[in-house]
Amino acid sequence: MTVLEEPVNAVADDTAAADRSDAPPQVDFDTSPERYRHWRFSVDGEVATVYLDVAEDGGIVPGYELKLNSYDLGVDIELYDLTQRLRFEYPQVRSVVLTSGKDSNFCAGANIRMLAGSSHPWKVNFCKFTNETRNGIEDMTEAGQTWIAALNGTAAGGGYEMALACDRILLVDDRSSNVSLPELPLLAVLPGTGGLTRVVDKRHVRRDLADYFATKSEGLGGKKAVDWKLVDEAVPRAKWQETVSARANEFAERSHRPSDASGIALPELDKTRTDDSIDYSYVSAKLDRDQRAVEIAVRGPSDDPGELDATFWTLAFTRELDDLILDLRANEPELGTWVFRTEGDAATVLAHDQYLLDHADDWRANEIVHYLKRTLKRLDVTSRSMLALIEPGSCFAGSLLELALAADRSFQLFGVFEEVDPDADPAAITVGAMNLGPLPMGNGLTRLQTRFFGDENAVAEIEKRAGEPLDADASRELGLITFAPDDIDWDDEVRITLEERASFSPDALTGLEANYRFAGPETMETKIFGRLTAWQNWIFTRPNAAGESGALRKFGTGQRADFDRKRV
Amino acid sequence: MTVLEEPVNAVADDTAAADRSDAPPQVDFDTSPERYRHWRFSVDGEVATVYLDVAEDGGIVPGYELKLNSYDLGVDIELYDLTQRLRFEYPQVRSVVLTSGKDSNFCAGANIRMLAGSSHPWKVNFCKFTNETRNGIEDMTEAGQTWIAALNGTAAGGGYEMALACDRILLVDDRSSNVSLPELPLLAVLPGTGGLTRVVDKRHVRRDLADYFATKSEGLGGKKAVDWKLVDEAVPRAKWQETVSARANEFAERSHRPSDASGIALPELDKTRTDDSIDYSYVSAKLDRDQRAVEIAVRGPSDDPGELDATFWTLAFTRELDDLILDLRANEPELGTWVFRTEGDAATVLAHDQYLLDHADDWRANEIVHYLKRTLKRLDVTSRSMLALIEPGSCFAGSLLELALAADRSFQLFGVFEEVDPDADPAAITVGAMNLGPLPMGNGLTRLQTRFFGDENAVAEIEKRAGEPLDADASRELGLITFAPDDIDWDDEVRITLEERASFSPDALTGLEANYRFAGPETMETKIFGRLTAWQNWIFTRPNAAGESGALRKFGTGQRADFDRKRV
Repeated sequence: MTVLEEPVNAVADDTAAADRSDAPPQVDFDTSPERYRHWRFSVDGEVATVYLDVAEDGGIVPGYELKLNSYDLGVDIELYDLTQRLRFEYPQVRSVVLTSGKDSNFCAGANIRMLAGSSHPWKVNFCKFTNETRNGIEDMTEAGQTWIAALNGTAAGGGYEMALACDRILLVDDRSSNVSLPELPLLAVLPGTGGLTRVVDKRHVRRDLADYFATKSEGLGGKKAVDWKLVDEAVPRAKWQETVSARANEFAERSHRPSDASGIALPELDKTRTDDSIDYSYVSAKLDRDQRAVEIAVRGPSDDPGELDATFWTLAFTRELDDLILDLRANEPELGTWVFRTEGDAATVLAHDQYLLDHADDWRANEIVHYLKRTLKRLDVTSRSMLALIEPGSCFAGSLLELALAADRSFQLFGVFEEVDPDADPAAITVGAMNLGPLPMGNGLTRLQTRFFGDENAVAEIEKRAGEPLDADASRELGLITFAPDDIDWDDEVRITLEERASFSPDALTGLEANYRFAGPETMETKIFGRLTAWQNWIFTRPNAAGESGALRKFGTGQRADFDRKRV
Repeated sequence: MTVLEEPVNAVADDTAAADRSDAPPQVDFDTSPERYRHWRFSVDGEVATVYLDVAEDGGIVPGYELKLNSYDLGVDIELYDLTQRLRFEYPQVRSVVLTSGKDSNFCAGANIRMLAGSSHPWKVNFCKFTNETRNGIEDMTEAGQTWIAALNGTAAGGGYEMALACDRILLVDDRSSNVSLPELPLLAVLPGTGGLTRVVDKRHVRRDLADYFATKSEGLGGKKAVDWKLVDEAVPRAKWQETVSARANEFAERSHRPSDASGIALPELDKTRTDDSIDYSYVSAKLDRDQRAVEIAVRGPSDDPGELDATFWTLAFTRELDDLILDLRANEPELGTWVFRTEGDAATVLAHDQYLLDHADDWRANEIVHYLKRTLKRLDVTSRSMLALIEPGSCFAGSLLELALAADRSFQLFGVFEEVDPDADPAAITVGAMNLGPLPMGNGLTRLQTRFFGDENAVAEIEKRAGEPLDADASRELGLITFAPDDIDWDDEVRITLEERASFSPDALTGLEANYRFAGPETMETKIFGRLTAWQNWIFTRPNAAGESGALRKFGTGQRADFDRKRV
């Protein structure tokens, strides 16, 4: 995360940080390759090569220059888009080489001026998105597009953390190129985008060596970096291209992706955003600033499953939901409760689910299910309270039932709304195959398994009822919903819940939800969002890092940070 | 954690908090039943009954009254001592009933005035010790003294969290006694002593019900509390005594503790404390305020293993080390690095280890090993950097080798100190049976398994060398130490490490070490010290909880807290 040689300038002061957090720039996550300023890529047969080539003047907000291939949120938005393009538009790609477009270094990590001048929520949201993209790179390996980090120069901090997300790390052996995690000694923060976790849990670097490594700002290279397992190979310049190609081809051979398929082009999203609404084709959101809530409606498919292209309902609504989550997280931090509704026909939702599962050996179906899985995981780590409202005319079935299972609480109407439509079918939910395996949470369990952690019988009973519309009584009996108010109580119960949620401390809710949502086992992924992220957030609030005399502010000024020496 | 009816008074202001953190009271952890002010207990055959009966005027620091059986660090110090007495002095006790000595309520949790007036380090250290004592109660169940919470009145916040550490929870069913976690709605903090983790991971309360429960300040009682799994039984007053006795007897029957043994009396520690040293029989510490370090020496046994009483070396040095850890954590927060040395004969250390393992079916040996295990776990969660220095004349073998394995880095001298004793035996370490299973970390793995997580061969190779003195070369080869400087480099390397450590941000070091020390699987225990504690620490730094207008300060004033509404 370091930019050692960066000259002292453009440090945003307190006022600027406050201004930004009060009126943050509207962040747009929808982009496409022709608009990239920081990345380019080429595809040669089965191998794609991705170049990080940051435009110094291309910061997403003013106040800093992106020197030494350092990055900010804007750089990461492009990287995320690029991973999506590779997955959907380039079926033939089976391995991806990540390298730098600069001659002299790979990547200096997250830009320090940006970090020093950003508000706490901005930093935290930036790190979360960055983490999700790194996890997504590991998910690509699982889906047959293995990433290789070809470090053609020094990879520092977040630059090395990006490499850690790859399946293999090659470092040029030229006596000057190193890998390093200089955050602690130089900036008094942690390598917070998975670095500490991946070093010991993924690469199995011994903890004492890892400790030394993370306190030595200049890092390690060559044979020692290999011996310590920090990189897999140190390769002389003379053999660089040849070795990188050889590794890329080796990984490509292990993939099962088709060589003769056509990609799915991802068109620009059909999105309309006003100050109080965000609308797409299948997803719409009403921003209720009085209640500090967002009402999110997801519409089911209108037709039977058709072609597996960008119009396929599951892919279309997932893209929209994904964009909505990212938009709300970045742009609407004060809207603390998200309320999910669905509209449509449960049978048609389940038909789409089944179509995808029946075509599990089709790379397109595989990518769509992976994408839905990753998007639902975003919800699990989103610091917003989530409610699901299950009403007549809704279609919480299979993949859409996951929204209710991801929610912190769910309400299913007992009976119907007498004044709206006394003859309506009562609200129902339907468990489907998508709830029983293909969409695991970060902890490796399904949302049902997590919900009933320690009670396998409960899950077994629910499995038996798969495919059956469950009314409020049945859902409650099975433990699938939280409450089942009737017509008379419904409005009051929902209103009280929303008002109550809006009255609580947003910080305490974040902590509560982060603990409750992940019962059971932990994985590298949940450790990154739990243990590592929580410690990093804490450190980001501490004067030793973020205060006037903290290391983030003092870096590059020639002055030493002034630390409170108490260990906490 | 709530004291609902507490009148508004005695809120320590900023100045008081600052004063306390600048010159904290010297906290003494060594106590004994005749000095208890807040607890009493009785032993009736196989069953002990423990009464929480807090003296309102007995706060460990001035500024608050311990109303409604609420607690502070002083109350918890007595509880910890009490658990140690039961384990060692009452071998016949096979189950423990935890109840309240007050008529009207069980326990209102941690005292809010104390929390509101405490510095951040004080709060964090208090929560850590409290957590360790709760984990220790669960460890007692494992060792044959099962705890039963007999909630004869309302258990709120930390009061309910104390009950959650018990193996069974009985709540009186009188229409007014409830269990609750009101921290979030009333104080904008988390139930931070394991509550959130134990509710979902131990008691398997469904996450949506748990969410509702933790936002409903008045809590739940009666049948609903049972249905939601918050308690095991709701018992009418008329059947209270009878039911509590019945459960205590049932649990007692499952224990293998002896009925006819004599206890081991735990005498007062032989401790001398000055401003720059702390000395016991086998353990001594030099407080180096210039280096912000503590040099800790542990002396091995001088004789062969004798009687399994309080003079048995393992028990004696463990008691001393335990007290030293607690003393330094509470009283010396600025001494950020602990340097471990040992002195003595490795063979005699190993003989004591072996004696304990050979007598594994003796309750005394069992308790001693459990105690050593718990004390070493304290090191793993201690927010201090730890180094081990392995020199000629040291005895890092078996149980004492765990100190080096718990350290963040270790140095073993290559050869001898020529100017001190050219004929000395070179520094050696010895792996013993105690390193291979009986002393697991909180993650369920041994320190060796954690150190080599992902590399089972490395552990197997080390097992083969058990019993063999390993010189610096061999230790380094096997990965058991970090560095092996020779006589010429030793002083410089150690000095540079100490200076460097003292120059870093204490917060960032805490985060770094908390992440690196726990590679591999997570357990309820590591989730409490990782995920839950880190989030709680973050929340404790946030103005929404701890600021001038935060909920901790505003509680009981009739004024509402003023929250920053941004979700982070």
